[in-house]
Amino acid sequence: MLLSNLFSNLAMDKSRDFGAISNLILSGFAVLALALAATIARAQDPLPSWNDGPAKQAIVNFVAKVTKEGSSDFVQPAERVAAFDNDGTLWAEQPMYVQFMFALDRANGLAPQHLEWKDKEPFASLLKGDLKGALAGGERAMEEFVMATHSGMTTEEYERIVKDWIATAKHPRFKRPYTECVYQPMLELLAYLRAKGFKTFIVSGGSIEFMRPWMERVYGIPPEQVVGSSIKTKFEMRDGKPALVRLPEINFIDDKENKPIGINEHIGRRPIAAFGNSDGDRQMLEWTGAGGGARLMMLVHHDDAVREYAYGAESRIGTFSDALMAEAKKNGWPVISMKDDWKTIFPPDKR
Amino acid sequence: MLLSNLFSNLAMDKSRDFGAISNLILSGFAVLALALAATIARAQDPLPSWNDGPAKQAIVNFVAKVTKEGSSDFVQPAERVAAFDNDGTLWAEQPMYVQFMFALDRANGLAPQHLEWKDKEPFASLLKGDLKGALAGGERAMEEFVMATHSGMTTEEYERIVKDWIATAKHPRFKRPYTECVYQPMLELLAYLRAKGFKTFIVSGGSIEFMRPWMERVYGIPPEQVVGSSIKTKFEMRDGKPALVRLPEINFIDDKENKPIGINEHIGRRPIAAFGNSDGDRQMLEWTGAGGGARLMMLVHHDDAVREYAYGAESRIGTFSDALMAEAKKNGWPVISMKDDWKTIFPPDKR
Repeated sequence: MLLSNLFSNLAMDKSRDFGAISNLILSGFAVLALALAATIARAQDPLPSWNDGPAKQAIVNFVAKVTKEGSSDFVQPAERVAAFDNDGTLWAEQPMYVQFMFALDRANGLAPQHLEWKDKEPFASLLKGDLKGALAGGERAMEEFVMATHSGMTTEEYERIVKDWIATAKHPRFKRPYTECVYQPMLELLAYLRAKGFKTFIVSGGSIEFMRPWMERVYGIPPEQVVGSSIKTKFEMRDGKPALVRLPEINFIDDKENKPIGINEHIGRRPIAAFGNSDGDRQMLEWTGAGGGARLMMLVHHDDAVREYAYGAESRIGTFSDALMAEAKKNGWPVISMKDDWKTIFPPDKR
Repeated sequence: MLLSNLFSNLAMDKSRDFGAISNLILSGFAVLALALAATIARAQDPLPSWNDGPAKQAIVNFVAKVTKEGSSDFVQPAERVAAFDNDGTLWAEQPMYVQFMFALDRANGLAPQHLEWKDKEPFASLLKGDLKGALAGGERAMEEFVMATHSGMTTEEYERIVKDWIATAKHPRFKRPYTECVYQPMLELLAYLRAKGFKTFIVSGGSIEFMRPWMERVYGIPPEQVVGSSIKTKFEMRDGKPALVRLPEINFIDDKENKPIGINEHIGRRPIAAFGNSDGDRQMLEWTGAGGGARLMMLVHHDDAVREYAYGAESRIGTFSDALMAEAKKNGWPVISMKDDWKTIFPPDKR
């Protein structure tokens, strides 16, 4: 369109002198160049699913600062550690943590061998399909439930069980695999940070062995960069081969004040950026923020009931308390509004 | 010298026909080319401190196999995980684990505040300089001693203490910093594996926070690739800032049957190569060997009393039992003879 305008202008202005024509040609090319530049900029935008706004700006500004050599905020690539919560930050956690859906499916499969579950909470409620009743015991009870239904087998057997389940299970509302209920804007953020020399880590309350089997494929994050909760394992010989057998005993719950502990134990370096979405991430963000130099701490706020979910202080899953919101404001942690900051929520349908 | 021989030969053979002369010139160049090729080969040898022999050959063969695309032994770069023990495998562990020397220095500094140590083993023996008496309690007693003298401060304070100590402390026999009592052939091996797409990990019984402050500089291994023993920490606010405080409570002892557990927890992938030097590494090597595909498990044998130390089954530090030697033979784990396989032990003196 621009080109045809240019030529029709030229055609109408045949009588003008050569200087005017050449000016017109030059200005035509300038318009073209600008249009081209805008197209390239769109194509090169590393965060195309983010609307322009304070959240996107905070990310871009931070990355520019810490990667600019010679700047006082410059951070060596080795120190560019970014920590991401998973549930509610990278993928949907409603109506229930995905790992819990997995545990529920497993519990139903295992129930015939565990008649005692009929009288024991939260098993009894869960087997009746009463999520609310089960949740009455709090997150710790659910964690124990998860652990209890995920022990007894070797680590290799467990990995196979997880891979099989995650390949077929679907989100009850979105009717697509859970691994496609991940947030497209956050996938772009992960890739953008890595392109800028960051190492991206998961620091999740989810169990480490539930996450590793699919995170490399889905997030591009290798197993050694996944920090999470775990149960104890035992080294023993099975059929003449060494095996690690999963014990029904909690080793570590990577949540709240334990997130900085998990970071210290597994990463051994303080992140310079951290992303979360709930009260469980507060200490991770505080720990990240307490280091020297430029820092970026952000919280995903689920305020989009139409495209995903809207929940906050009142929710048992992914509680985002008023106190956390107040702390974010006080500390200048940008809060990401799903509704306003994200153009799309999930990646394009792969089918 | 080759060139001058060539020309003197030419001078003596002036009477010969041109064909003979040109043959001579060609053969002279062939000799030159061979000599040059040998020089280049030496310069390009990634393991110049290793003598030619079965140990070096095993390494080179293994790396060639797993990195050759299209070969049935090919391993994707992401799966090329190599695990290294530290004490006795990468640096000298005699006459005593370095961390223990550190603990001893700290205990002496702290003794005035701990009068109860006078009557408590292994503290009492240690403060009297009686290493042998202290060792009577076994390695676990020493580990507890190490933990006890390394708690109470924040992780940041502890890192500073380690850095200060390691910068000045010297090996009692070699009179050089401990970080220069590392094995030059193993430094070359680490670099060689990384150049071939491997990720190199430490899997040591030493405490993780004693190792991380210097391993990136000395071994090129970043903190997140260091697996080791640890004490528990506690998240708390100190002077209004979040801090992790080290507790006098063991979290994990990364030795023997716990090494595969530590590998699973931190790396989440089974190594395809593992290097150790003692009974403490047996299960790590077994675990590594139990995976499918090409594997390399090797043991450093300290048989060089002249240049380093000679010890084995009888030693409390770095015990290399007859049973381990028998297992190595049975499984085809190459045993590295320090005396025969290593041209040099330590890096050149930096002073």
